[in-house]
Amino acid sequence: MKFLNFLHAQGPRLGVLLDDDNILDLTAVWPAEPAPASVDELIAGGDAALALARQAIAAPGHALLAYADTTILPPVAPTGRNIFNVGRNYRDHIIEGNLANGRPADAFPPAIEFFTKPRTALVGHRGNVLRHAALTDSLDYEVELAIVIGKGGRDIAPEQAHAHVFGYTILNDVTARDLQRLHGQWFKGKGLDTSCPLGPVVVHASAIANPDALALELDVDGEQRQSDNTSDMLFNVAAIIAQLSAGMTLLSGDVIATGTPKGVGFAMRPPRCLQVGQTVNARIQGIGELSNTVVA
Amino acid sequence: MKFLNFLHAQGPRLGVLLDDDNILDLTAVWPAEPAPASVDELIAGGDAALALARQAIAAPGHALLAYADTTILPPVAPTGRNIFNVGRNYRDHIIEGNLANGRPADAFPPAIEFFTKPRTALVGHRGNVLRHAALTDSLDYEVELAIVIGKGGRDIAPEQAHAHVFGYTILNDVTARDLQRLHGQWFKGKGLDTSCPLGPVVVHASAIANPDALALELDVDGEQRQSDNTSDMLFNVAAIIAQLSAGMTLLSGDVIATGTPKGVGFAMRPPRCLQVGQTVNARIQGIGELSNTVVA
Repeated sequence: MKFLNFLHAQGPRLGVLLDDDNILDLTAVWPAEPAPASVDELIAGGDAALALARQAIAAPGHALLAYADTTILPPVAPTGRNIFNVGRNYRDHIIEGNLANGRPADAFPPAIEFFTKPRTALVGHRGNVLRHAALTDSLDYEVELAIVIGKGGRDIAPEQAHAHVFGYTILNDVTARDLQRLHGQWFKGKGLDTSCPLGPVVVHASAIANPDALALELDVDGEQRQSDNTSDMLFNVAAIIAQLSAGMTLLSGDVIATGTPKGVGFAMRPPRCLQVGQTVNARIQGIGELSNTVVA
Repeated sequence: MKFLNFLHAQGPRLGVLLDDDNILDLTAVWPAEPAPASVDELIAGGDAALALARQAIAAPGHALLAYADTTILPPVAPTGRNIFNVGRNYRDHIIEGNLANGRPADAFPPAIEFFTKPRTALVGHRGNVLRHAALTDSLDYEVELAIVIGKGGRDIAPEQAHAHVFGYTILNDVTARDLQRLHGQWFKGKGLDTSCPLGPVVVHASAIANPDALALELDVDGEQRQSDNTSDMLFNVAAIIAQLSAGMTLLSGDVIATGTPKGVGFAMRPPRCLQVGQTVNARIQGIGELSNTVVA
């Protein structure tokens, strides 16, 4: 099940993407009261809500909306606490970053580098990414698998971690490289408005056999820049949840991005960062494609 | 006016601290409908709500609650996006940190180091701080002046910054030094549950003549550890708001902590970090005292 938030004439609604081309308006056909109007409300409803979603999807005769013609919203609410992010996590990306920054190639982080992005930065599928030309001359892309937490908790053991996952989505961790470096800590360079494209859908965990073995790739205007597999992650999904939740309570609906593979623009020679008019397409196996255009 | 959230038998309420010993239950005596039930709701009400607060405070004959006997809650909601924090910002603290870490004493940051703390870490005045002994052997304190944003905005110029401030409070940026270092980025070492004591009150900006010239200090069980003045900040309140809001929208109710002065435990020789049973008292001129005890 690929859940999404979309904009209906009467406001934001919960939908499910069927056969990649059609959206079922789950809010409209929900077989109980009250109907969830967002992915967050679906998650908050737990297993009972998920059972009702399955029931609604299985019922025949529903009218569908065309995915291509529908405004897709970010799959989590624009309010709520910041999105959690994992820094350098793909072996080859760590090496490219080390070489670009004059560090030893094999200087791997001993523990996960966590930072956050504010929800004011959220953009949905097909939404625009601001170039922020007055602030940065090195806006960059990063395709990432993002975990959406179902059941919250603290001190979650790695072997219990998957039981806390609702599903997975795609996050483009748009980054102003010069600000990331200038401000020391990464929040400022990662936190500009529209720097967090997310979506288009949250795929329920039951549809992802192994999140630690998913192909992911990113192109800019059709030119492939990133292509890797989550199996290259230094810290896998279970390790990320365990380390983040150690002493810190995770909440239902939290989003955790898991880091990006090699191929970012700033590490190219010469660097090739994002410019107005370019479209960035991020794809992850079993989830779909997240596309965003850079605008002035 | 010193606004606070407190726990009434019927739930959380908005109050105002009068004469340092007595709380007026603003929610109960609010001269209009609906009454705000929190500082966040007061801020959201803008100037009109502030005028009603002044009217309620001026009205005679209200019953008061004893501050000493009342449960004080954090002055902002436990949900909502993360709290923004400024890293190294006091000249002498930067020098003590540089010396403790083997860097040149005068290596000052060229721009503000922003990071965040999750709201799951919030604790009110007199609340307990967990020792997290299984995770850290170097839990430390940091007294900080915290800005509470009134009117949101993006690209706020320094000369306009004060018009966006609702008021000021005290934040103790409790930090696990070993985790801060181990995880590279500071979020993990700064984000443990109960690591963000905040309060007790938000003082309205009209009562603070100059936030860049406030004495602040912190003691552990009565032994003074930090004592400085916000005039030693490398980046003042206006500069912090300007840099943080550059390209990133600030929202009403956002909290921005402004960094801590010298005297933290990990920089003492030998280091003296927090232990179970100790009480940390953070005071800022014109705001009050925030006290929290460390528990297992």
